Amino acid sequence: MIKAAIMGYGTIGSGVAEILEENRDVIREKAGQEIRLKYVLDLRDFPDSPVADKIIHDFKQIEEDEEIRIVVEAMGGLNPAYPFVKACLLAGKHVATSNKALVAAHGTELLEIARQKRVNFFFEASVGGGIPIIRPLYRCLEGERIEEITGILNGTTNFILTKMDEEGETFEAALKEAQSRGYAERNPEADVEGYDTCRKIAILTAMAAGREVHFEDIYTEGITRITDTDFKYAKQMGTSIKLFGTSRIHDGRASAFVAPMMIDKANPLYSVNDVFNGILVKGNMLGPAMFYGSGAGKLPTASAVIADMIEASQNLDSHVPMGWSEKPLCVEPIETASFRYFVRIAGSWTDREADVNTYFGGVDVHVLEGLDEFAILTGRMQEGAFRRAAAAFDTAEQAEGRPGIRQMIRAEM
Amino acid sequence: MIKAAIMGYGTIGSGVAEILEENRDVIREKAGQEIRLKYVLDLRDFPDSPVADKIIHDFKQIEEDEEIRIVVEAMGGLNPAYPFVKACLLAGKHVATSNKALVAAHGTELLEIARQKRVNFFFEASVGGGIPIIRPLYRCLEGERIEEITGILNGTTNFILTKMDEEGETFEAALKEAQSRGYAERNPEADVEGYDTCRKIAILTAMAAGREVHFEDIYTEGITRITDTDFKYAKQMGTSIKLFGTSRIHDGRASAFVAPMMIDKANPLYSVNDVFNGILVKGNMLGPAMFYGSGAGKLPTASAVIADMIEASQNLDSHVPMGWSEKPLCVEPIETASFRYFVRIAGSWTDREADVNTYFGGVDVHVLEGLDEFAILTGRMQEGAFRRAAAAFDTAEQAEGRPGIRQMIRAEM
Repeated sequence: MIKAAIMGYGTIGSGVAEILEENRDVIREKAGQEIRLKYVLDLRDFPDSPVADKIIHDFKQIEEDEEIRIVVEAMGGLNPAYPFVKACLLAGKHVATSNKALVAAHGTELLEIARQKRVNFFFEASVGGGIPIIRPLYRCLEGERIEEITGILNGTTNFILTKMDEEGETFEAALKEAQSRGYAERNPEADVEGYDTCRKIAILTAMAAGREVHFEDIYTEGITRITDTDFKYAKQMGTSIKLFGTSRIHDGRASAFVAPMMIDKANPLYSVNDVFNGILVKGNMLGPAMFYGSGAGKLPTASAVIADMIEASQNLDSHVPMGWSEKPLCVEPIETASFRYFVRIAGSWTDREADVNTYFGGVDVHVLEGLDEFAILTGRMQEGAFRRAAAAFDTAEQAEGRPGIRQMIRAEM
Repeated sequence: MIKAAIMGYGTIGSGVAEILEENRDVIREKAGQEIRLKYVLDLRDFPDSPVADKIIHDFKQIEEDEEIRIVVEAMGGLNPAYPFVKACLLAGKHVATSNKALVAAHGTELLEIARQKRVNFFFEASVGGGIPIIRPLYRCLEGERIEEITGILNGTTNFILTKMDEEGETFEAALKEAQSRGYAERNPEADVEGYDTCRKIAILTAMAAGREVHFEDIYTEGITRITDTDFKYAKQMGTSIKLFGTSRIHDGRASAFVAPMMIDKANPLYSVNDVFNGILVKGNMLGPAMFYGSGAGKLPTASAVIADMIEASQNLDSHVPMGWSEKPLCVEPIETASFRYFVRIAGSWTDREADVNTYFGGVDVHVLEGLDEFAILTGRMQEGAFRRAAAAFDTAEQAEGRPGIRQMIRAEM
């Protein structure tokens, strides 16, 4: 029998306790022995919960109890999650975490400690909720050179964008609905500004490249600028707008970014809607493969933690090689990446056709009845070149007293 | 350095040789050492190929060479694949195969030999081509009770159905195109009659339940009866028709079948088109997760074999617990499964409304302009009850000299 502890009895921590109980037989069979919960660390008491007798408030009890072989970290945030996890690993305990902030900020160090201590630091639940994606990268696609990972990695923003797409809602109304359903926090910044997606794509990129990725280096743009008008054009164009975390890896470098992206039906991620996540992995031999499922939620996410606990149980005395090295991956600035650009411009197309073609080259034009503007879809341009063209175009427009560019959304199609 | 052999230098065997060369550095890093190809067994010679100097014609050379630790079986069929694979395992060699017929027919015995000999018998490439699906079942979803697996598991039939859906082609024309593109064999029976899908869903069911599944017990219906008229209704109804292999597992029993299925946009498999495969797995905690990618093709499938070779390299002296036991899973007859039914009936709805309601209960009705027929979509019924109702309705119609039921397609929506 293996004794385990859970740190943090919130949504995910309580889900882990629940699955340990509910799927006890399956887990025992796969782990080779029973995994029994001994402690649940939380500041609060939970007198009416099934774990009431296991609640403790002092981390030292876990750290110093040699019987505890596996610790689940489900507290979130960096403090005290980081010192606690580090102490657990140093004490020779396996750790499974769902905490993307922790993995993105301190993963390199924690992985190195796990290696030295011959234990495991697993984090399947930190990306994609219940969708197996971390483990497939080191267990299933091992013979592949991963060339690209693109994911819809945040369920909250995907819910908001799906509402805007399907029901014509404004960003504000869709956000409100997400909040009232409990999908979005009262302070939704981490989701809607793309910070959550940024940490997740940083982790996936590090896994795929085997090198450390500084998430701060990844260009990150959220969805707060996306409007219902954008979706009116998208509908007419047969496209949709999704928040992508993308990295393209080549020769030890990565082009990585988080940004809203206009895509069409040919993209397998097009039909990933509502709170679902989808992650597209392109290998040099495999071509595209997509992993799809519940990107959040108590039980799906807890299920991923359980898979980590089982793998730790199967490797109690050995370190499973996975993760990344201390060697940093060079993340290229977004200016060197190439996209098509969907751009909305005030005024009428006929007056500006010549100017637009001068600055942006050949474009597709889209007009919505009743609006004092038009939209163009450029050919593929480097971001740097596009920005220069857009700035110059805007300057020229404003010199003539015109409002200029109203919106820019990158496009992949 | 690990020495390996490939049996069968066809599409997949040559793909494996190619990836071993092309991704040599990645593979060495993940496997912990180089995997070097020593023999390629084939009846033919390949004087102009990169493996010309490795070609052998006598299986004994592989069987008796103690240096060979890993053998890839990519011959297909049962003979001589079965005796050769069995001999390799008995000789203490690891085997990776892409051969679903072999795994479905002899997997139980071969897994048992692998267990006894403390080697590994891996078959990731036997289902879903390059899509990781076998390994996720034993590596990633271990803590889950798998309740359902539904897959579009055959690229050829999916290509044909996609052509019929998107371009209004007849089955015969779409099959011809699949053949001319090399997606379908000259004798397409194994694909279009559902036999290939049957073996694949049998393997997935056995993996999920941990028990032996006799593929002969699985009700199997192909796509040869599906017509362009069916797709005209589907278009009007906002649905599509896909060939599903499905099993629902509960209490040590499975309800499993292969059949064309009418589905709507809400189903994640709806957008799996062309030669792609998609596999939806429902766990009791995870909810639905989908795996999507290239279900066939030289390099994707070979990539899955390579992943098996790497796992074998990491476990040269140990047996990785996976697969299923000799205990058979009870596969229930299709009569006990429940579906909705899309049924096309000759004549006009107004004449038959009362009769239809008598036999089938409340239904949705669909009429296509210009056809001397109508279609109904029943509520959910048990297959046995539906068959009795349909037979009784048909008898009543024919007693009045009417042609009766023209088509029946099961529906999930």
